[in-house]
Amino acid sequence: MFTPGPTPLPDSVREILERPALHHRTAEFQTVLARTTAGLMRIFQTRQPVMTVTGSGTAAMEAVLVNLARPGETVAVLNAGKFGERWHAIARAYGLKVVEHTKAWGTAFTAGDVAAFLEEDGREASILFMTHSETSTGTLHELERITGVARERGKLVAADVVTSLGVHPVEFDRWGLAAAVCGSQKGLMLPPGLGFVVMSGVGWERAQGGGLPRFYLDLVRMRNSLNKNSTPFTPSVPLVLALEESIRLLEDEGLSAVHARHARHAAACRAAVGALGLDLFSERPSNGLTAIRVPEGKDGQEVVTRLREEHGMRVAGGQEPMKGRLFRLGHMGHYRDDDIRDLVAALETTLVDLGWARAGGARDAAERALAGEAESASQSTTT
Amino acid sequence: MFTPGPTPLPDSVREILERPALHHRTAEFQTVLARTTAGLMRIFQTRQPVMTVTGSGTAAMEAVLVNLARPGETVAVLNAGKFGERWHAIARAYGLKVVEHTKAWGTAFTAGDVAAFLEEDGREASILFMTHSETSTGTLHELERITGVARERGKLVAADVVTSLGVHPVEFDRWGLAAAVCGSQKGLMLPPGLGFVVMSGVGWERAQGGGLPRFYLDLVRMRNSLNKNSTPFTPSVPLVLALEESIRLLEDEGLSAVHARHARHAAACRAAVGALGLDLFSERPSNGLTAIRVPEGKDGQEVVTRLREEHGMRVAGGQEPMKGRLFRLGHMGHYRDDDIRDLVAALETTLVDLGWARAGGARDAAERALAGEAESASQSTTT
Repeated sequence: MFTPGPTPLPDSVREILERPALHHRTAEFQTVLARTTAGLMRIFQTRQPVMTVTGSGTAAMEAVLVNLARPGETVAVLNAGKFGERWHAIARAYGLKVVEHTKAWGTAFTAGDVAAFLEEDGREASILFMTHSETSTGTLHELERITGVARERGKLVAADVVTSLGVHPVEFDRWGLAAAVCGSQKGLMLPPGLGFVVMSGVGWERAQGGGLPRFYLDLVRMRNSLNKNSTPFTPSVPLVLALEESIRLLEDEGLSAVHARHARHAAACRAAVGALGLDLFSERPSNGLTAIRVPEGKDGQEVVTRLREEHGMRVAGGQEPMKGRLFRLGHMGHYRDDDIRDLVAALETTLVDLGWARAGGARDAAERALAGEAESASQSTTT
Repeated sequence: MFTPGPTPLPDSVREILERPALHHRTAEFQTVLARTTAGLMRIFQTRQPVMTVTGSGTAAMEAVLVNLARPGETVAVLNAGKFGERWHAIARAYGLKVVEHTKAWGTAFTAGDVAAFLEEDGREASILFMTHSETSTGTLHELERITGVARERGKLVAADVVTSLGVHPVEFDRWGLAAAVCGSQKGLMLPPGLGFVVMSGVGWERAQGGGLPRFYLDLVRMRNSLNKNSTPFTPSVPLVLALEESIRLLEDEGLSAVHARHARHAAACRAAVGALGLDLFSERPSNGLTAIRVPEGKDGQEVVTRLREEHGMRVAGGQEPMKGRLFRLGHMGHYRDDDIRDLVAALETTLVDLGWARAGGARDAAERALAGEAESASQSTTT
């Protein structure tokens, strides 16, 4: 499986999932929850508690929005893909006024873009909602710099780091984020079913002082329970137990090494794409996935189908409105160099068979990138 | 584990949980989702689609409320325990006016109570929210009859069947319910992490015509996706795969046989309690759990602790405000007669050791009930 989430499960994570049921109101579970919370705080690089929500990443996004935003207020959204769009849709569902800065799918927002937007259309908004790694286009937006210019203009920044956490550095406190959300089935190497939310002190003040109507997604209630190492509602126990293991795996490897591994794997995929004469879809690619532009007149779904049928490999096509026009290789989470070698080899065979590329070069290019040559060093520190 | 949820996991369910990751946008997953939806429809006894929500039972309750209710309207709630209270709390979180019929914990609502309430305080409400099996007190409210009197008075009935589905018959269509919700970790023998929602045609009209602000819990969006055998957001894949197996287990045994087994197990526990000279907490006990009143001057937590430490059995204490004043034996889900025999034997030993009961009689009483004597036959058809 090489999809940008769900991602493969390490064996030790799978073993935990099949354990007999454990009750959530026990000292044993409370100890695990305390450990996973502390581990998530290290991964988000924050001193704020990280809330674990039973739900998808979208539930975590909605939790942030309904706890941070005030009824009727104007919020700003950066939208250059499906997940930027989602912030907009959630805000509209709650009757908020949305001012949006849109760019074409595949392009990246720059700090300059955002500064100009916040001084014009975004002037009245107090919160900026954005995506760090846009999974629909494979683009990494420069979250750290954008947060800087937004803060200079008095804005809070809430970021979707669903496909960047555990892939690229995310330094919640140092960057001055107001909120960030993630899901379990990406860099954290778990099945889907959990969302994670962290908020700054200012974020908590807003949540405590009001917010929009909510019950299940009330972060204040979650935090009060978490102070007693508990959850307000029955959590998805097996996933929380497995989370302890996936955090252990990440920390045993070392977060910097995990980021560097993702950078090497991404560099290998990008190098292979270049050697095959194809173009990346994104102007600023994420290390979590590689989106490849489909040549004019071809259908990207063919690559997806062939890789599945002939190589047993699952990659992702494009999402609306890019269906058929791009395909996406996921390499976030639990991958080894050999997995990437297999992927590149299968991709080369497939694209040559389809007549989209000529044989030769892709594997060597990938190998050089895996060895740490090419662009990997510089990409590993991109945020 | 003898807690009223989470309940023990069958081995075949656990095996599925540890399978390698499966992507949710695949024909394979879509086929499973179509099957689990059809299976849930048979279990809820409805022709309406049953929505699967990644979240707890509370998320499913909130989904019903925000899709059914209209901004600012008055809703009616029956509250004689923690989960009746929860309907009230969710409604208040969305600014609804709540008229409530409360009764003491441990008592049961009757159709007569509810008729009188709906003709007085509940007059203006168009929806009645209630609990079928109240887990905090072990009480089964007469949902079928109450729904009948509410419908005669023009009210929609939304019921929490979290600890009754798969335990007692729930006949969604025939009883004329407007909505019902369940969770995965009870009679459905799964880990927590999924909620289930079903709505009647009238319920869907209300949801489509408005409802309260929501995004993740928007049932209309879920239904549109379900029409394509899909979900709007990433579902908790392993739990859905395991659900297919737990439905198979229930249907292989036969729903009536499953209900009868729960009735026998409940009758055995109640007979043992009587033989031990203790009182049931509830005046109309659910077959999903047995709540036992703690004798005056004693602390129910002692029973919970002794059963855990000396017998390795986990039962539940009382929830606020009944902490210490009752304890609860869960017997919903995957239990065999021998499990109940072990539970009764351990309970007798523990209560004799504590000086709350005299030895002798409990096991025989339980055995007679397991053999189908005593009250089991009549209880098996109580709804």
